[in-house]
Amino acid sequence: MMKKKKKPLILVTNDDGISAPGIAALVEVMRTLGDVVVVAPDKPQSGMGHAITINSTLRINKVKIYGVKEEYSCTGTPVDCVKIAVNKILKRKPDLCVSGINHGSNMSINVIYSGTMSAAVEGAIESIPSIGFSLCTESIDADFKAAQKIVKAIALGVLEKGLPKDVCLNVNIPNAKYDTLKGIKVCRQARANWIEELDERKDPSGKSYFWLTGRFENFDKGHKDTDVWALENGYVSVVPTQFDMTAHDAIKQIEKIKF
Amino acid sequence: MMKKKKKPLILVTNDDGISAPGIAALVEVMRTLGDVVVVAPDKPQSGMGHAITINSTLRINKVKIYGVKEEYSCTGTPVDCVKIAVNKILKRKPDLCVSGINHGSNMSINVIYSGTMSAAVEGAIESIPSIGFSLCTESIDADFKAAQKIVKAIALGVLEKGLPKDVCLNVNIPNAKYDTLKGIKVCRQARANWIEELDERKDPSGKSYFWLTGRFENFDKGHKDTDVWALENGYVSVVPTQFDMTAHDAIKQIEKIKF
Repeated sequence: MMKKKKKPLILVTNDDGISAPGIAALVEVMRTLGDVVVVAPDKPQSGMGHAITINSTLRINKVKIYGVKEEYSCTGTPVDCVKIAVNKILKRKPDLCVSGINHGSNMSINVIYSGTMSAAVEGAIESIPSIGFSLCTESIDADFKAAQKIVKAIALGVLEKGLPKDVCLNVNIPNAKYDTLKGIKVCRQARANWIEELDERKDPSGKSYFWLTGRFENFDKGHKDTDVWALENGYVSVVPTQFDMTAHDAIKQIEKIKF
Repeated sequence: MMKKKKKPLILVTNDDGISAPGIAALVEVMRTLGDVVVVAPDKPQSGMGHAITINSTLRINKVKIYGVKEEYSCTGTPVDCVKIAVNKILKRKPDLCVSGINHGSNMSINVIYSGTMSAAVEGAIESIPSIGFSLCTESIDADFKAAQKIVKAIALGVLEKGLPKDVCLNVNIPNAKYDTLKGIKVCRQARANWIEELDERKDPSGKSYFWLTGRFENFDKGHKDTDVWALENGYVSVVPTQFDMTAHDAIKQIEKIKF
């Protein structure tokens, strides 16, 4: 008797919160690929980066939104969600961890501020093949149909071929019709930055407060091997992403300082 | 008439909050090296990683704790503090940004969870020579005297020689008397991880809640070029740290997946 191939176990999370349309679109694809467990924040957690909750406690609540194998909302950050899923909820290490689909791009330097991508990076730290997906529009009415086809193709590729050790993928998808997409481009993150970042306002008593805002500046203009170039030119960008922050090339130079 | 050399402008922040003994120790050293501006969180922000505040507003409040050039507490994260300092408070780009001295080590993978180091990384993103300092004890009664000598030596070295583009330093200092320190070792971050990370408890009504906790596991045992090895063997560890998350070596391998 032939042994039936085991269904992949897929962990789904995000940073826009468990009820965001983007995670609904992601779950819809993942349930066609395997057994899905959702552990996602109970409220928006954009910009939380790799934050974890250590000065207060965490709770998870069973929910029934998507009708998948198991689903929980969590009071913590996206990284907390991955930790609690791996350590508490899942009986075995999942075959895939996907985060998103984020409402808004996470290209270039934004990978470091992004809760979506930090969840995927945490998956990689836990040695789980992991992917963060973002659609390049912040509209709540975004159409995820084209993105879903891309998500499926990339998730299938990763399930089949795996990923290099300690590497996850940062996938950004242009907000466009599927037929107009130029293709999928593997690239590096562009060197870019946010500038003029504060919007100062006065409260009713005349005291100042601030919103973080700003303008995105690409210092890698003209380089065709970056994610910013790929997205500006109609490609889906796929950046292999890792979590070793060491500037290996700088070690010899720093040794010369002789502190 | 000889022009007097301009005093360095030094931005000081941390993640334990503006009233922590560690930042007091750091300010005490920095005021001997230049004009000091403190912009630090008004409450503990440990484990905040590279989080920024985008779903709510930020405030800064002038304080008079250390009697330096300017000092503000900020309602945001360590990264918010750097952004608000650079964009709003400082008249010019500082010559140095220092974060800490953290109460507790930030070696290895902890760099990605650390608010202390994320502030230094944000400094590097802003092209400011930046250093995160951590003392390897979480005791509130820690003795920072030995650490202060190390901080001064490293800050002077960086002020004099600068740092490579897009690189900051992650400095961890053993909790030991100065004379017993073996020296300063430039190294890479060890590949390590947290495992078994949840302490589950019951609230008075019998519902579960969790504390993040866990055990640190070093997968780089025996490698003498890591920060964990340096600290275990009595050295101060200095890891050149960068913010390009691209796994450059994996690009060709990912291209072969043919999504």
